[in-house]
Amino acid sequence: MLIVMNVGATQREIDGVVRVIESLGFRAHPMPGATRTAFENLPGVAEAVRVTKPYKLTSRDLRPEPTIVDVGGAKIGGGSLAIIAGPCAIESREQAFSVAEAVQRSGAQFFRGGAFKPRTSPYAFAGLGEEALKILADVRDKFGLRVVTEALDESTVDLVEKYADMIQIGSRNMQNFTLLRRAGRSRLPVFLKRGMAATLEEWLLAAEYVMAEGNYQIVLCERGVRTFAQHSRNTLDLAAVPAVRRISHLPVIVDAAHGTGRSYMVTPLARAGVAVAADGIMVEVHARPDEALSDAAQALTLDEYEQMVKQVRAIHEVIA
Amino acid sequence: MLIVMNVGATQREIDGVVRVIESLGFRAHPMPGATRTAFENLPGVAEAVRVTKPYKLTSRDLRPEPTIVDVGGAKIGGGSLAIIAGPCAIESREQAFSVAEAVQRSGAQFFRGGAFKPRTSPYAFAGLGEEALKILADVRDKFGLRVVTEALDESTVDLVEKYADMIQIGSRNMQNFTLLRRAGRSRLPVFLKRGMAATLEEWLLAAEYVMAEGNYQIVLCERGVRTFAQHSRNTLDLAAVPAVRRISHLPVIVDAAHGTGRSYMVTPLARAGVAVAADGIMVEVHARPDEALSDAAQALTLDEYEQMVKQVRAIHEVIA
Amino acid sequence: MLIVMNVGATQREIDGVVRVIESLGFRAHPMPGATRTAFENLPGVAEAVRVTKPYKLTSRDLRPEPTIVDVGGAKIGGGSLAIIAGPCAIESREQAFSVAEAVQRSGAQFFRGGAFKPRTSPYAFAGLGEEALKILADVRDKFGLRVVTEALDESTVDLVEKYADMIQIGSRNMQNFTLLRRAGRSRLPVFLKRGMAATLEEWLLAAEYVMAEGNYQIVLCERGVRTFAQHSRNTLDLAAVPAVRRISHLPVIVDAAHGTGRSYMVTPLARAGVAVAADGIMVEVHARPDEALSDAAQALTLDEYEQMVKQVRAIHEVIA
Amino acid sequence: MLIVMNVGATQREIDGVVRVIESLGFRAHPMPGATRTAFENLPGVAEAVRVTKPYKLTSRDLRPEPTIVDVGGAKIGGGSLAIIAGPCAIESREQAFSVAEAVQRSGAQFFRGGAFKPRTSPYAFAGLGEEALKILADVRDKFGLRVVTEALDESTVDLVEKYADMIQIGSRNMQNFTLLRRAGRSRLPVFLKRGMAATLEEWLLAAEYVMAEGNYQIVLCERGVRTFAQHSRNTLDLAAVPAVRRISHLPVIVDAAHGTGRSYMVTPLARAGVAVAADGIMVEVHARPDEALSDAAQALTLDEYEQMVKQVRAIHEVIA
Repeated sequence: MLIVMNVGATQREIDGVVRVIESLGFRAHPMPGATRTAFENLPGVAEAVRVTKPYKLTSRDLRPEPTIVDVGGAKIGGGSLAIIAGPCAIESREQAFSVAEAVQRSGAQFFRGGAFKPRTSPYAFAGLGEEALKILADVRDKFGLRVVTEALDESTVDLVEKYADMIQIGSRNMQNFTLLRRAGRSRLPVFLKRGMAATLEEWLLAAEYVMAEGNYQIVLCERGVRTFAQHSRNTLDLAAVPAVRRISHLPVIVDAAHGTGRSYMVTPLARAGVAVAADGIMVEVHARPDEALSDAAQALTLDEYEQMVKQVRAIHEVIA
Repeated sequence: MLIVMNVGATQREIDGVVRVIESLGFRAHPMPGATRTAFENLPGVAEAVRVTKPYKLTSRDLRPEPTIVDVGGAKIGGGSLAIIAGPCAIESREQAFSVAEAVQRSGAQFFRGGAFKPRTSPYAFAGLGEEALKILADVRDKFGLRVVTEALDESTVDLVEKYADMIQIGSRNMQNFTLLRRAGRSRLPVFLKRGMAATLEEWLLAAEYVMAEGNYQIVLCERGVRTFAQHSRNTLDLAAVPAVRRISHLPVIVDAAHGTGRSYMVTPLARAGVAVAADGIMVEVHARPDEALSDAAQALTLDEYEQMVKQVRAIHEVIA
Repeated sequence: MLIVMNVGATQREIDGVVRVIESLGFRAHPMPGATRTAFENLPGVAEAVRVTKPYKLTSRDLRPEPTIVDVGGAKIGGGSLAIIAGPCAIESREQAFSVAEAVQRSGAQFFRGGAFKPRTSPYAFAGLGEEALKILADVRDKFGLRVVTEALDESTVDLVEKYADMIQIGSRNMQNFTLLRRAGRSRLPVFLKRGMAATLEEWLLAAEYVMAEGNYQIVLCERGVRTFAQHSRNTLDLAAVPAVRRISHLPVIVDAAHGTGRSYMVTPLARAGVAVAADGIMVEVHARPDEALSDAAQALTLDEYEQMVKQVRAIHEVIA
Repeated sequence: MLIVMNVGATQREIDGVVRVIESLGFRAHPMPGATRTAFENLPGVAEAVRVTKPYKLTSRDLRPEPTIVDVGGAKIGGGSLAIIAGPCAIESREQAFSVAEAVQRSGAQFFRGGAFKPRTSPYAFAGLGEEALKILADVRDKFGLRVVTEALDESTVDLVEKYADMIQIGSRNMQNFTLLRRAGRSRLPVFLKRGMAATLEEWLLAAEYVMAEGNYQIVLCERGVRTFAQHSRNTLDLAAVPAVRRISHLPVIVDAAHGTGRSYMVTPLARAGVAVAADGIMVEVHARPDEALSDAAQALTLDEYEQMVKQVRAIHEVIA
């Protein structure tokens, strides 16, 4: 039995653990930390267990207090509730404005909308590109909302930097290290979605790539993982929120749209995301979801969105 | 493209769908329902898609209004919030009473506690058996709580029927059809946990086994599924709650203890379970978790439990 | 970094590991083994890693040489190739005999066929029961094949003991501990399928339940696990074969029928099972698969079966 | 019940299916194909099932005969057995040559070795870059082996094109669409690994991205998916090989190194890969695995490699 103490464990805590060990009739053997290499192939070795964590800058060991991320003057983290809403993809100025108006009215501060869409099929609608970014910039000017939008590679980071307030890195790119490093050299904060099969450690190490380049303004986003379950598009792993909280100082947002993929589940899971103490939620909203060019099945109508915001605010007050 | 309508879809709804299809330039071909067999091996067949659902008694198609389950006079379902709390295993009268007192004080109506524990290892503590059932019966008499406890096979169902108010069927036994049929012939309501790799359909069909024997008093319990994630013992699949609600009339409870396996996650996930509109939650409580004989890592202390109850009640009011 | 040595590691092996550690500039701290309890809730503890394995009787530490299981005089394990073939369910004497004749002709020694079928739906064909067992006994007498068939509970074990040569415990019952204990008190060998979400440890502990009652004649069967993959019914985890081999002395069989659920995949995966050095394979065969009452989609025709047997025998010779 | 026929199903096949349907007492309703949009939100709709496949160029419907990929004059596909071997990362000329000599001696035609390594941690060894590519070019000249190496982004594709014979796209980049499009404009063939949570459809659509740009020379590589199983690094999904074969004309290789992550499993799973009828295997080889700078735990020694090659060649003959 190996007991790994926290990096900052006090002598008193260590003594407490030793006492329990000895009360069970065992002897305790203190052991200084060490780092990893490949031992498993040596003769006689049954298993090699890594006991130090590979992430550093993302860790509470390095920075105990929570990071508050500044997105064009609005904050994510530190006890406030961030609501990030908007259409999946920007389809037209009219479509974007109709949603932005509702988002502004709800008191939310962040607007999302895809300009560059990573689509599973090369034949699917891939976004309006720079034209969409211009619409997003207009949304910011007209409605006072901060704009979050996805970049797919180095050249789209250049464009996103020109028009938006926050760079989103999508699930499929969570381990696109070239992109992570480029985002690490940006002046904009980064919204980093969890990969669909990523462990917590891999996710934090992706953030570590960004931070290692000097950009410490990162928001993590849980958006569901891939499992055998077929009733939702992904399985939203809400336990990731307290788990991240325990080891990292970075804020965490729950994406209830991609995390479910079914519009009738979005409001309940958005409520659950706030109840689990995420720093905010991301949802998709569309004035006429049936006509959306992408991800229609997971968008809220304007009315549903308004109702949802009321409920999540009330839940946020309960747990504050 | 195949569009499957709900069983109760109106002609007006059908016409609406046809209109959308035709507005896209396609022709709509109405097709009466049919049932399944094995076609996939016939020459030329690419795929056979089942379009009827195999569950019947558990379905909203059969019974549109929600089932309210009566557990010794207390109700689960129908808008109330059921809190089921107690130790993982009954270890002694003192241990059970210390927890029961806190559960009663919190206003909860249901007490859980294992008498027969299904343990992964044959060498682990497997519960006190009938002695534990007697303690549970005393808890009911002294504290006015309804008692939920697990049965493992036909003979333990006999014993549980003698002492308790509700028969729990655990995850590992979700497809123990002999046990399900025996529970279907009981006068007690059944608390049916989802198997750790069960689809919604398999879970509902397990309930269907119970109902097919005549027992319609069933509460479903989401308790997490097995995934690659290592930060929690299981991955709590909260989307299962709205998904079940949509197709079945049976109440659903969220087990935040087994669903996480880490005590620091229990309260956030219990809150999330209520926020997602489950009919209640199940948690484990222990006066001194460090000394518990089983599942110590997921029990709340008495204080943590008291705090948690306040929060979930407040969230329940928000969404009511 | 913790290096766990095998139980039987020699001093020379330990010294070798220490040398590598020190060549990397670290100090090695030998540490006697200890057993587990719940430390993770103590203050300051980051993680508690169990370093002893919970299984004993199934382990190579206890019994280094491979177990050879005797099934009515025919052997499984020890270098031979066991072929277990037959229909999913026994439907009639004619159906069973037509398949048994082909199985006998192929030189295989084991016949499978379900009498009691655990079906996901209570409305599906559940087997002919004792009538099927009588047909199986006739297959044994007439064709000289050993009969493997599934028991679902204590009372069906009684019946299987009366008619068959080996008790199969299915995936859904891998943690039905009452059934495992009953099989542990049987004079018949046990064919133990892996649960669809079972870790290796859980699977070996299920075998440990049987052995703890005194029955050491167990054959493990890998039959696929549940994953997100949709192209096969289950994902056959062939790495489980060398993994089991490394830690346990029990023979392992690969079920290429349930492991794939698609007849066109059965032969390739049966070959792969033999190539990975399993002690044998299980397949389903039907004279007219299109008319089978259960699992039609995964049965081989008689011709396909004959071809498959030739190929797996040739592969077995390559790796012998 | 919906029966989807293959695109090329004959009238005779269709009539055969209709006959079976009618023999079961149902009526058959022929239905012309249609394409997909979002219907699930319309009132009354229970489910919308897509019945056309989104991949085109990768499909057997488009090209029934198998694609044979030309890698610098050596072929992959069409019945031959491709063996791709080499170290995980190129560490030095000496290391590369010592392995290349053994690879050449074994009769294999393809050499692998990482110059740019996508590492989970930003602090891990990330490859020697262009220096490694120069060593790989020397391996080609000196040993006559074709060189396969990974590119991470557009600029490393430029470099790989300069020195190597085939561009590898790794699991983490399977949906890096910018990279896929760049590879689609290359004159080199592409080695496309399956993402660790990718469905078959997503994998084929990734290949479709490459083909849509004009590059039809693609080899798919199954390298294991992420599951709950802990005994191997990934779960090698060998059923993917027949599944791909059935719907696509592209060759498929099995990576037994990453697919297992444990050196003692590599040879058995490489044999299984050939037995399942893959077009070849990829393995990692190192003269002194204990000293490898990356993925030491999954490399074969030179001797193990030589033995493995003999076995897989013999198995290949069995199934040819």
